[in-house]
Amino acid sequence: MIVSMRTGSTKEEIDAVVEKVHSYGWDVQMNIGTERTVVAVLGSDTGQVSTDVFAVLPGVETVTRIMKPYKLASREVKAEDSLVNVNGIEIGGKRIVVMAGPCAVESEEQLMEAAALVQDAGASILRGGAFKPRTSPFSFQGMEKAGLELLKKAKDKFGMPVVTEVMDVRDVSMVAKAADILQVGSRNMQNFTLLTAVGKSQRPAVLKRGFSCTVTEWLTAADYLLAGGNNGVILCERGIRTFEDSVRFSLDIAAVPVIKKYSHLPVIVDPSHAAGHYSLVPAIAKAAVAAGADGLLIEVHPNPEKALVDGLQSLKPDNFANLMKELRLIAESVGRYI
Amino acid sequence: MIVSMRTGSTKEEIDAVVEKVHSYGWDVQMNIGTERTVVAVLGSDTGQVSTDVFAVLPGVETVTRIMKPYKLASREVKAEDSLVNVNGIEIGGKRIVVMAGPCAVESEEQLMEAAALVQDAGASILRGGAFKPRTSPFSFQGMEKAGLELLKKAKDKFGMPVVTEVMDVRDVSMVAKAADILQVGSRNMQNFTLLTAVGKSQRPAVLKRGFSCTVTEWLTAADYLLAGGNNGVILCERGIRTFEDSVRFSLDIAAVPVIKKYSHLPVIVDPSHAAGHYSLVPAIAKAAVAAGADGLLIEVHPNPEKALVDGLQSLKPDNFANLMKELRLIAESVGRYI
Amino acid sequence: MIVSMRTGSTKEEIDAVVEKVHSYGWDVQMNIGTERTVVAVLGSDTGQVSTDVFAVLPGVETVTRIMKPYKLASREVKAEDSLVNVNGIEIGGKRIVVMAGPCAVESEEQLMEAAALVQDAGASILRGGAFKPRTSPFSFQGMEKAGLELLKKAKDKFGMPVVTEVMDVRDVSMVAKAADILQVGSRNMQNFTLLTAVGKSQRPAVLKRGFSCTVTEWLTAADYLLAGGNNGVILCERGIRTFEDSVRFSLDIAAVPVIKKYSHLPVIVDPSHAAGHYSLVPAIAKAAVAAGADGLLIEVHPNPEKALVDGLQSLKPDNFANLMKELRLIAESVGRYI
Amino acid sequence: MIVSMRTGSTKEEIDAVVEKVHSYGWDVQMNIGTERTVVAVLGSDTGQVSTDVFAVLPGVETVTRIMKPYKLASREVKAEDSLVNVNGIEIGGKRIVVMAGPCAVESEEQLMEAAALVQDAGASILRGGAFKPRTSPFSFQGMEKAGLELLKKAKDKFGMPVVTEVMDVRDVSMVAKAADILQVGSRNMQNFTLLTAVGKSQRPAVLKRGFSCTVTEWLTAADYLLAGGNNGVILCERGIRTFEDSVRFSLDIAAVPVIKKYSHLPVIVDPSHAAGHYSLVPAIAKAAVAAGADGLLIEVHPNPEKALVDGLQSLKPDNFANLMKELRLIAESVGRYI
Repeated sequence: MIVSMRTGSTKEEIDAVVEKVHSYGWDVQMNIGTERTVVAVLGSDTGQVSTDVFAVLPGVETVTRIMKPYKLASREVKAEDSLVNVNGIEIGGKRIVVMAGPCAVESEEQLMEAAALVQDAGASILRGGAFKPRTSPFSFQGMEKAGLELLKKAKDKFGMPVVTEVMDVRDVSMVAKAADILQVGSRNMQNFTLLTAVGKSQRPAVLKRGFSCTVTEWLTAADYLLAGGNNGVILCERGIRTFEDSVRFSLDIAAVPVIKKYSHLPVIVDPSHAAGHYSLVPAIAKAAVAAGADGLLIEVHPNPEKALVDGLQSLKPDNFANLMKELRLIAESVGRYI
Repeated sequence: MIVSMRTGSTKEEIDAVVEKVHSYGWDVQMNIGTERTVVAVLGSDTGQVSTDVFAVLPGVETVTRIMKPYKLASREVKAEDSLVNVNGIEIGGKRIVVMAGPCAVESEEQLMEAAALVQDAGASILRGGAFKPRTSPFSFQGMEKAGLELLKKAKDKFGMPVVTEVMDVRDVSMVAKAADILQVGSRNMQNFTLLTAVGKSQRPAVLKRGFSCTVTEWLTAADYLLAGGNNGVILCERGIRTFEDSVRFSLDIAAVPVIKKYSHLPVIVDPSHAAGHYSLVPAIAKAAVAAGADGLLIEVHPNPEKALVDGLQSLKPDNFANLMKELRLIAESVGRYI
Repeated sequence: MIVSMRTGSTKEEIDAVVEKVHSYGWDVQMNIGTERTVVAVLGSDTGQVSTDVFAVLPGVETVTRIMKPYKLASREVKAEDSLVNVNGIEIGGKRIVVMAGPCAVESEEQLMEAAALVQDAGASILRGGAFKPRTSPFSFQGMEKAGLELLKKAKDKFGMPVVTEVMDVRDVSMVAKAADILQVGSRNMQNFTLLTAVGKSQRPAVLKRGFSCTVTEWLTAADYLLAGGNNGVILCERGIRTFEDSVRFSLDIAAVPVIKKYSHLPVIVDPSHAAGHYSLVPAIAKAAVAAGADGLLIEVHPNPEKALVDGLQSLKPDNFANLMKELRLIAESVGRYI
Repeated sequence: MIVSMRTGSTKEEIDAVVEKVHSYGWDVQMNIGTERTVVAVLGSDTGQVSTDVFAVLPGVETVTRIMKPYKLASREVKAEDSLVNVNGIEIGGKRIVVMAGPCAVESEEQLMEAAALVQDAGASILRGGAFKPRTSPFSFQGMEKAGLELLKKAKDKFGMPVVTEVMDVRDVSMVAKAADILQVGSRNMQNFTLLTAVGKSQRPAVLKRGFSCTVTEWLTAADYLLAGGNNGVILCERGIRTFEDSVRFSLDIAAVPVIKKYSHLPVIVDPSHAAGHYSLVPAIAKAAVAAGADGLLIEVHPNPEKALVDGLQSLKPDNFANLMKELRLIAESVGRYI
């Protein structure tokens, strides 16, 4: 951390900063310039302390963080890429893993039909929501426990691992029994109570990026999962909130190489929630693979016109099958496969 | 809702839209223009249905919502201002209610000192966090139950109602026993599980705006509380995330008149979390009162330099006392009092 | 500037950084930590050099700016508040200066009616656009030269100084002949060609904030005006682009105290363009005065329903007169007057 | 346009809306619901009129635009893709056109070296800035006329068309003499004076997206160029301003398919300005090609460590050559070539 004093700060003010630094067991190095004094704080864990503790002291003008606030998710702690193994399917390796299925589980018929068609087209993991975070209390909230039962049934029938969202801290162990991967949704990325519980679970977890959280905050949230002992963390970029109104969220494609640069965790992309419209999903999905994403999370519905939730962003069976063909070619062009 | 068909859409496509409208029990009125057909959907509860159910149909170009998605929080459902009564203190009336105190409860001494000084300066409700949402798992997480005990003690000693945050759905009844007002934090504004539980509690609740949520989403979240039977909902604007980096969050001052226009609920302002720096708090607090806010939520610490959390945005005792004097003058200039 | 080297950077890499620093005539101070080396760059004009020149060097991880990139607009260069004198009216002093009038000059009748009514209600400067920046080429583009003539006429008739926008670098001297204050619009805040020309003019200038520019970029743009020799710079906050859709732009109320902290220049607020709707203008205007703004720029139209441009955000004569009464009370409550 | 009246609006208010509609020569169709009246406005050019002219009328609650405000840039006006021909190189066809070179022209040696290496690696158009928009007046502003001369020299020597930025409306014809493509920079996307002048020029133009402008605003700005008679419009996505701070701007990858959906104009991508760091450029460039972009605009410098401007985001010769190889494979995987 770098503490820059105001022009004209007194010796007492500077001494108080130094004393504060020492109280954390850290060292200082002083830069006494002609205009102002700059105090460099030297220590290996300064990233975990708020800059405020120095900024609040008299005579301090700015405090700048050099170290990142996240730790366990960083490449500095673990240089090589992490692989997450889900029933033999490796996420983060050469294979690009496609997770596909309906936004919400709506009925046995719908889920089985969806599972059959996404598997047929080449998806390796089935997605489907049993609990749905809905902005209005008057909207359909998901099939809940009955939905979990259907997911288990689909998993057994098709031999595909299943990913589903958990919203309530009280449901973590129940959902972990039914699902192979727990999903923490965008609106819960900073629900630290839920993160702590999922961190203690032994299930791999997809951590969706909060739609207004920085990559740094996202990796710091991943630290909650990793600190609990859960090493199966898969990051999922799903679009951020911006001023642009032609899409539901703006997919932050640069987040893929940024994550690869700073973290060892695998990162997948959800083009469906970003786009908000099925016609934009293929282009975003293709871009994600070209940019280096380790997988995709795509909404597919046997009959989007009858979907109870998010039908507009769901691909039709034919479109999904076509997209998978295109994705295979792009995967090969970047030295990977689906 | 207004469904605009694409130029050249077929009769079958238009009929399918009409059929879908009728399936909800609504009426249509057709506008057959020279270039395109526009279908107006007529019904009293169209706001509660997603526009997607029409947008996904073939031949549809755009679907526009006329009615707001929130209901119980709207002025259309309740025209007169709601008043929230907390132990005799009315929020939403002529009096501007100042809630003040430390960000986090740190010790008995700290809390009692803070309570004494904010009461002395004219605050009527004591704030203090026992459970703290922290972006990093390695940061101080609050005194938790011991903090709640101290809040109860302060409340008894000073006869001031207490507001404190609840983060975990499992803690709602415990926190409701200690606190007079439950606070739902910004990061939990769309934690629908928590909203549902707080909605069932009998305690008034401060619902902080999600830092990247629109006013419409905020009022829809308030519907969760109101739908559960909790009528004591107090909205709190605390800044939104923008590109501007000279403050922690950009306080959306226009949210105050916007809320007053569309909702009957009282709205207060938290200048401390928005500013992120004590030197900016007074100007924002004064602006909030001038703009019509019903109250303020301000961080004050007996000794900000020693604060464990958010010391930089906490006012010192003297500065708070001075601010209260200035606020009284502004309150009077807009026909209110503190 | 603080250059933080990567863990494991070599002596050669560090030496290259030092050499680069010396090439600017600056000094370094080295901080050799256990994990990484940090090079502090010491010099009085480091703010004017891009951090990139160091960040691009091998072995460098991050470069952090300590000094602001603006210079002439900063409090460090000039500690006391600047006053801008416009025909005897002082902007930046105790008096809060209200500039009011129609968005666009539409006709002699409309302008004279507007001038009379805003003067009557207490405004001291007349605003009116002769050249209008319009997002579509098919929209009304202003009365142009004829509009300037009308502004001169109104100025002579009512004895009020006039502020109007200049968009084209070729028009600067022509507009400067007609107007007492030149306005640089939000979309031109980083039109450096125009800034340079206005900087050379002897007319005071209102520099509107780019709707997506930071305060730092705004003050750096002000440096263009000041560097040209124009000391009559008045900053105008008019709302920034955010995700919130209930207003046209989100007024950044904190920009007022932030400007006061870092700059000596006066700052006024335009509540009309931010709100986009007349019903929200009074609350924002009152907030601005309470927050410490030195003036207001308000759209008022004798008959908003017939306005050619921005009628929706224009106040009616009665509403403006009422607002002026309210503003006087608030101005007094913060020790100022209108 | 759809005008929704407030609940309880009077017959007089509704009649006034109808009268206003008729004043534009348009028709209305009335929807008299149980709760409110909705007036549909029918006409072929309603997109060119502001919604404000209705929103300002008494009794109106909301006005919703159905038609887009842009016209000439839309697919409705021209269904097939536009091709822009630059000295025989077609932009918008099967070939993906790579424009590469230094951010700023710095010297003859630098420019010639850059031209040779980018041509060698497969770029077909040379980029280089002679006039540089700089946020600070104290930064290097470009070689100006001397830079233009060097660009002409490079063009002649290498037989490559040249693209360069024009910032000043007074320089348009001079720059058009030296360059094959005029570039309108991001900060000038809504400099309507400049757009009008470039629209009258016969040179093809790259219109960079304003970093805080919506796709709709961007296409409306393109209308300025098209309305002037310039059909050679090439759109360039270069990143938008968001809260994310790990990149300079967030590249809006979805803008590529959105433009393809709504407009006939070719669209290219500038990964360099978005990323702000060379290490992120390749991933973004590859994503752009996979998403369907018609070309790329990439900064390459013979020696980025010595660059006067934006060295950090410039690729080194080797990295650019490698990237071109990767891009060729991706182009083939989507049925195109470089």
